[in-house]
Amino acid sequence: MRERIVAIQGEAGSFSHAAALALFGCDIRLAPCVTFDDLFRAVSTGSAACGAVPIENTLAGSVSRNYDLLGEHGLQVIGETRVRVRLCLAVRPGTTLTDIHGVASHPVALEQCRRFFATHPGMQPVPTYDTAGGVRDLMAGKSAAEAAIGSALAAELYGAAIALQGIEDHAENYTRFLAISREVPYADEACKATLVFTLNSVPGALHGALGTFAERGFNLTRIESRPIPGRPWEYAFYVDVQVDRASSVNVAVSALRRIVDHVQVLGIYGESRGPD
Amino acid sequence: MRERIVAIQGEAGSFSHAAALALFGCDIRLAPCVTFDDLFRAVSTGSAACGAVPIENTLAGSVSRNYDLLGEHGLQVIGETRVRVRLCLAVRPGTTLTDIHGVASHPVALEQCRRFFATHPGMQPVPTYDTAGGVRDLMAGKSAAEAAIGSALAAELYGAAIALQGIEDHAENYTRFLAISREVPYADEACKATLVFTLNSVPGALHGALGTFAERGFNLTRIESRPIPGRPWEYAFYVDVQVDRASSVNVAVSALRRIVDHVQVLGIYGESRGPD
Repeated sequence: MRERIVAIQGEAGSFSHAAALALFGCDIRLAPCVTFDDLFRAVSTGSAACGAVPIENTLAGSVSRNYDLLGEHGLQVIGETRVRVRLCLAVRPGTTLTDIHGVASHPVALEQCRRFFATHPGMQPVPTYDTAGGVRDLMAGKSAAEAAIGSALAAELYGAAIALQGIEDHAENYTRFLAISREVPYADEACKATLVFTLNSVPGALHGALGTFAERGFNLTRIESRPIPGRPWEYAFYVDVQVDRASSVNVAVSALRRIVDHVQVLGIYGESRGPD
Repeated sequence: MRERIVAIQGEAGSFSHAAALALFGCDIRLAPCVTFDDLFRAVSTGSAACGAVPIENTLAGSVSRNYDLLGEHGLQVIGETRVRVRLCLAVRPGTTLTDIHGVASHPVALEQCRRFFATHPGMQPVPTYDTAGGVRDLMAGKSAAEAAIGSALAAELYGAAIALQGIEDHAENYTRFLAISREVPYADEACKATLVFTLNSVPGALHGALGTFAERGFNLTRIESRPIPGRPWEYAFYVDVQVDRASSVNVAVSALRRIVDHVQVLGIYGESRGPD
């Protein structure tokens, strides 16, 4: 049985690692990438079979760069999953709270602990490229900080003590991840589609475009607009719609083509899991 | 003649400084703030009369946090302006390119120079809280970096030499700023309105909401969705619409109230300038 190579941004023990396990099962080999650009490149070039990509968080909002990368690469979305984000303050065993001046973590995780930093003014956030990497570096003595914010999994994996648990601002903290791949699997129970389109700037054009979904009873679960480089004040719209079956997406897209400048289907997939 | 106190995020010489001059004229006194939260607080508490707030950039997209702050504070949008972003590599006089290992700037400016860093692999981005502050710290000998990315104005103001000009990825690089205030001025030539609404999650609900603008011929120039903390997978939609006159906004809002969960007018204002 061949392990599937799955690219993630960050290290073992990250929330991306948890998402990769949920999307592709336990029989995977991780390909950790430093940046999201590296992740998409790894899947595009075939050095990884698939990728697990965070696309939005219920507190911080969209991971904008990943919308751009979805549009730029010719990859397909083949599944999605939602991961509960529970953040811990990880320390070297024996460290007390008063010893801590710097707290390392990914900027998104730091932003999700705004209240924690407000109530601990002696602690300064120190940006790192990854939550789990911050914990690993702390334990390897390679960190400028005395603590790191990450998952309990990362603390366990790297032997850190957990000084505080659940330090995120809101308990209702989830990140949605997309499974991406070059190959399109057979979508037997497809119930979601992700599309991107650009508009001619005509009054009411967006309303007209969304009408092609509304009149078919498709629920629009997400809309994200991203600027188009070199075309100031024009946008690419990324939308997620719930659909009854894959073939109905094609009918809606044909109607959409008559209204919008450009449209591309980024994926038709089932919720909660990629293919096994 | 009384100077108006204008809050900006960052320092003198920043692009926010340029925006404040465009929005409020030359007879202003700057109130530099470390964070956007501080900026909104300064205007809310009255320690500043107004604020100049970056809301979107034609390359990086929305400044998401400022959408949230607009929704949280009871302040009014009273004007807008667009500032061309031209980025310079500022150095201490005598520094050559090979001397440079670290380049300090605000994360958004660093992200806009991705191509520059790709072609200069010996230089590492060093995040600072402000473009102009990075240049000032460099010249004061308080920087860990040997160069800073900022405006030509900042270089001039702090006595830095410009090693390279126009190092941003795209020349078509503009930031749109909003003027915010507690007081609502008389809107004589209003042609734009900013609103926020939340939706009951009904299929087609967004389409219906946008229809209240479309059927009145209002052009939707911007839509931004932000997560609602504590209500996973529900969103607040921020929209900008071009309107013929202020009173027609109220008619559209009355119609919108029958469709959406909650709606709030954040401002009705003229383009390009706040009040003098």
